Amino acid sequence: MDLNADLGEGFGHWSLGDDRALLSVVTSANVACGYHAGDADTMRSVCALAAEAGVAVGAHVGYRDLAGFGRRFIDVAPDTLTNEVLAQLGALSAFARAAGTRVSYVKPHGALYNALVRHEPQADAVVDAVRLFDPGLAVLGPPGAVWLKRASVAGLRVWHEAFADRAYTAAGTLVPRSEPGAVLRDPAEIAARCVQLATEGWVRSVGGRPVRIQADSICVHGDTPGAVEIARTVRASMESAGVVIARVESPLRHSRVS
Amino acid sequence: MDLNADLGEGFGHWSLGDDRALLSVVTSANVACGYHAGDADTMRSVCALAAEAGVAVGAHVGYRDLAGFGRRFIDVAPDTLTNEVLAQLGALSAFARAAGTRVSYVKPHGALYNALVRHEPQADAVVDAVRLFDPGLAVLGPPGAVWLKRASVAGLRVWHEAFADRAYTAAGTLVPRSEPGAVLRDPAEIAARCVQLATEGWVRSVGGRPVRIQADSICVHGDTPGAVEIARTVRASMESAGVVIARVESPLRHSRVS
Amino acid sequence: MDLNADLGEGFGHWSLGDDRALLSVVTSANVACGYHAGDADTMRSVCALAAEAGVAVGAHVGYRDLAGFGRRFIDVAPDTLTNEVLAQLGALSAFARAAGTRVSYVKPHGALYNALVRHEPQADAVVDAVRLFDPGLAVLGPPGAVWLKRASVAGLRVWHEAFADRAYTAAGTLVPRSEPGAVLRDPAEIAARCVQLATEGWVRSVGGRPVRIQADSICVHGDTPGAVEIARTVRASMESAGVVIARVESPLRHSRVS
Amino acid sequence: MDLNADLGEGFGHWSLGDDRALLSVVTSANVACGYHAGDADTMRSVCALAAEAGVAVGAHVGYRDLAGFGRRFIDVAPDTLTNEVLAQLGALSAFARAAGTRVSYVKPHGALYNALVRHEPQADAVVDAVRLFDPGLAVLGPPGAVWLKRASVAGLRVWHEAFADRAYTAAGTLVPRSEPGAVLRDPAEIAARCVQLATEGWVRSVGGRPVRIQADSICVHGDTPGAVEIARTVRASMESAGVVIARVESPLRHSRVS
Repeated sequence: MDLNADLGEGFGHWSLGDDRALLSVVTSANVACGYHAGDADTMRSVCALAAEAGVAVGAHVGYRDLAGFGRRFIDVAPDTLTNEVLAQLGALSAFARAAGTRVSYVKPHGALYNALVRHEPQADAVVDAVRLFDPGLAVLGPPGAVWLKRASVAGLRVWHEAFADRAYTAAGTLVPRSEPGAVLRDPAEIAARCVQLATEGWVRSVGGRPVRIQADSICVHGDTPGAVEIARTVRASMESAGVVIARVESPLRHSRVS
Repeated sequence: MDLNADLGEGFGHWSLGDDRALLSVVTSANVACGYHAGDADTMRSVCALAAEAGVAVGAHVGYRDLAGFGRRFIDVAPDTLTNEVLAQLGALSAFARAAGTRVSYVKPHGALYNALVRHEPQADAVVDAVRLFDPGLAVLGPPGAVWLKRASVAGLRVWHEAFADRAYTAAGTLVPRSEPGAVLRDPAEIAARCVQLATEGWVRSVGGRPVRIQADSICVHGDTPGAVEIARTVRASMESAGVVIARVESPLRHSRVS
Repeated sequence: MDLNADLGEGFGHWSLGDDRALLSVVTSANVACGYHAGDADTMRSVCALAAEAGVAVGAHVGYRDLAGFGRRFIDVAPDTLTNEVLAQLGALSAFARAAGTRVSYVKPHGALYNALVRHEPQADAVVDAVRLFDPGLAVLGPPGAVWLKRASVAGLRVWHEAFADRAYTAAGTLVPRSEPGAVLRDPAEIAARCVQLATEGWVRSVGGRPVRIQADSICVHGDTPGAVEIARTVRASMESAGVVIARVESPLRHSRVS
Repeated sequence: MDLNADLGEGFGHWSLGDDRALLSVVTSANVACGYHAGDADTMRSVCALAAEAGVAVGAHVGYRDLAGFGRRFIDVAPDTLTNEVLAQLGALSAFARAAGTRVSYVKPHGALYNALVRHEPQADAVVDAVRLFDPGLAVLGPPGAVWLKRASVAGLRVWHEAFADRAYTAAGTLVPRSEPGAVLRDPAEIAARCVQLATEGWVRSVGGRPVRIQADSICVHGDTPGAVEIARTVRASMESAGVVIARVESPLRHSRVS
C-alpha cells in the first residue's frame, strides 16, 4: 500500500506542515506547484528531500489562487485550466529533474480536487494537460471521479486513494466536513481502519455498514504536529500487520514503458 | 544573422505587442515565462505560433514582479533566483514541447538583464539554473556581460546580441535611455546600421567613431505598431544586402550534440 | 441622465482603454480598485483626472483575480468578500481624497456583477461592506438584482443602469453575450436607443417589443477606439435631443446629508 | 514607554505569530497592509482585536512583494512608492474605522524600513504619501533615519523606536544581523536592557560602552512562541521598575488637533 501526503505547501516566508517529518513516513509526496501554494524554493527543496528519501514526486496541481489556498471553486475556462496545469507540471518537473528524480503522478488539490469529481469540462481539461505533458504519468484521485474515468479512457494509468482520517458514507463517498464525525481524530482508530482497508479492502461507514473501498494509496495529513503523529501510527500499525508500504510502482517502471 | 524579439508579454486580459506580426519577421522569440509577464495561455499560444513559423523559442526569464513588468531591480537571494529561473524554464519548456518544439536559449529580461551585466552573485545564480535545467541551452546577452563570461566558463554556448534601435558609446556599451539620442527612431537609419553591423561588424558610435560589435543576433522591438514596421524594414534591408537571416543554429543541432 | 464607464483597468505596464478620452464623455467613472485590474498608479491618476473633469468616482469592485480580470466566478466566503470589498473601497478612497474628490458610489465588476444578481450570500456580503465603509455611498447595478434589493432594505441609495450597446429580452434582462445580436455595433442605432431610453423610458427588445427600463445611468464602453466613438455619439445625440447629461446627484449632496 | 510589535503578518491560509497573545502585551500594533503580508481578513480581525484591547493601530507599509515578505530591496520609482503607500494606508484605514478605531501612525517594514534610513527619493516618497493621506499621522522609525528627518521638516510628528532584542554599536546603530551577538536571546538580559533604556535612556553597546538611545517606543517581536514570552517578560520587568507602559499619545490627541 502507498501512503501519500501533501507537501511543499508553504509560500515565501510562510511555512505549513513538517515536510521532513512526513517524508520519513509516506511513499508518495504531492508537491504544491506554485498555484495554490509553493514557490520555486519549496519545490526545489521538497524534490531534493523526496529524491533522497526515495519518495515518489507527484504534482499537486491547483487553481491559480494563492490568496484562497486553492480552496475556492474558480470557474476558469477549460483551455486556460489545461495550460495552467501544463505550467505547473513543467515547473515541478524542472525541480524533480534537478534533484535526480521525476514527476510520476498528478493529484489535484482542494477545490479543483472536488470539482473534478463531477465537472466534465474541467475534468477533460486536466486530462488533456497530463496527456500533453507526459502520457506516462499516473493520475491519483477518489474512486468514481469523472476525471479518472476520462483519464482511463485517454490511456492514462489511474490510481485510487482513500483518506485515513475521513468518515465514509454507505455509498463509499466522503462524509462532508460540515457534518459531525466527518473527520476522525483518534490515532488508534484511524490506524485500525487503515489496516483493515489495506488487508481486507473495506471500512465501516458512518452508519456502521461495511463499505468496499478499492485504494492504491492512503492519504495522510501532515499540516499539524498531531497529524504527523497520526501518520506515523498509521504506517507503524500497517507494517505490524504485515502490509508492505511501498510506492504504487517501482521507480523504474516509467523508464521501462516509455 | 539572427533576429530576436520579445514576445508573449501580455498577461490575462492584457495584451502587448503584435506577436503574430513579429513572428513573421524574427528568427528567435524571447518568450515571457510568467514572472515579469506572460501566463499559461500566452506561453501556449506563442510556442505554438513559433513552432509553426520555425522560429526558435528562447526563455525570457525575469524577476518575479508582474506589477513592475520586471523592470525594477530586486535584491533577491541568489539561491532563490536560481530556483525562480528553473521554474520559468520548466514551465516554458512544457509549452514548447506541447507545441512540438523546444526551448533553445535563455535571455534575461529588463532589470535582470541589466543586473547580470555586473552583479556576480545573480549572474552565477542564473548560470547555475541554466546548467541544472539543460546544459545544452545557449545563453543570449550583450557582449561583455559578467553572466556570459560565467556561462562560457561553465561550458554553455554563448550568443551575443546587438540592438537595432539603440545608440552605442565609443566603448561599445549602450547609451543610457536617459540620454538624448539613446533610441533611434528612423527606420531607414536603423536598417542601414543593422546592415553595416551584419556585413562589416561595426556601427558608428554616438560620438561618430566606428565601434566594433560582435553579434550573433540583432534585437528588434515589437511593442508598438511602428516597431513592427521597423523590424520589417530591418529584415528586408538586410536580405537585400545579401545577409542570410537565420536562427543562430539549425534546429537539429541540439539533438545532434545531446 | 448619467453616463458611466469602466476606467483605470490597466495594470503595471499594461494599459486598457483610453481613460482620458472617456473622461470627456461620461459623468461617472467606475474605477478599478486593484483586485481585478488597476494598481496604485492607475487609481491615483484616474482619480486626479476625474476630479479635474468633475466626473463622479465610483468604486468598481471585483473578485481578487488579476489573472482572470475578475471575469471568473470565485466561490469566495462571504466574510472574506466583505473584507475584500472594504479593502478596495479604502484604497480607492485614499486616492479620491488625495485628488480632492471622494468615492460616491459602488459598482461591482465582471463575474461579481453577474453573481450579485442572484447569489444571496455574496450580495449580502457586498452590501455589508458598503454599509460598514460609508452608508452614504450609492450602489449601481441592473434593475432587479438581488444585491440592490438588499442594499435598499439596508438603507443605501440605489441607482439603476442600462447598457447602451446591449440587446434586451422582453423580460427586461440582457440577451446573453453568447447569443446572436446580443451586442449592438451601429453607433447611430445605439445612440437612438439611448435617446429613447432617456426620454421615454423604454427600448425595443430583441423580439421587437417595447420594454420599460428604468435607468438612472447608461453604461458605455471604452476599451476600444471604436467604443470611445460610440460613447461620444451617444452623448451628442442625447444632448441634441435635449437630455441633460449629469451625475446622478450633485457633488454637494453627500456633504449635505452626512 | 510604548511597546510595538508587528502583527497581522499572515496571508490567506498561512499564519504567522500569535496576534492575540501580543495584543495583551503591546500598546501599538504595526499591522501589515497586504503588500508584504496581510490580507483583507487579517486586517479586519487585527484591527478589531486591537480596538478591543485599546492598542494603537499603525500601518506597517512595505514593498509590493508577498513572495519575498517585503524583505528584498526593490528599486521602485518614487511616484509609484508614494501611491503604493497611499493604497496601503487607505485599505488599513477602512478596517480600522470599521472596528471603531483609526490608523494613528506609520512604520515601514523590512527592506523598506532599511532603505528609508538612507535612500532619499524613497524617503521623500513615503513622507509624501503620509502627508497626502493624513498629516495628523505620526511616523515611527529608528533615530537618525533620513525619512524621519524629512517627515519632521514636512511637519509630521516623529516617534523613535529602539529594539528590545538587538545589539547596538557605539554609534547607536544596530549591529547587523550577519554579525555575532547581533540578536539577544536571554529574556532576563533583554528585559534588563529595556528597563535601563526606559528609565535612564541608554544601553550598553556591543563593545561595552554606554550608548544614549532616545526612544518613544520599544519594538518587541512575536513571530515565535519564545518571542511572546520575551515580550511578556519585558513588559513585566518594566512595570515592576515603575515604567508606565502606554501608547505614545492618548487616543484622543488626534481628534483634538485635527
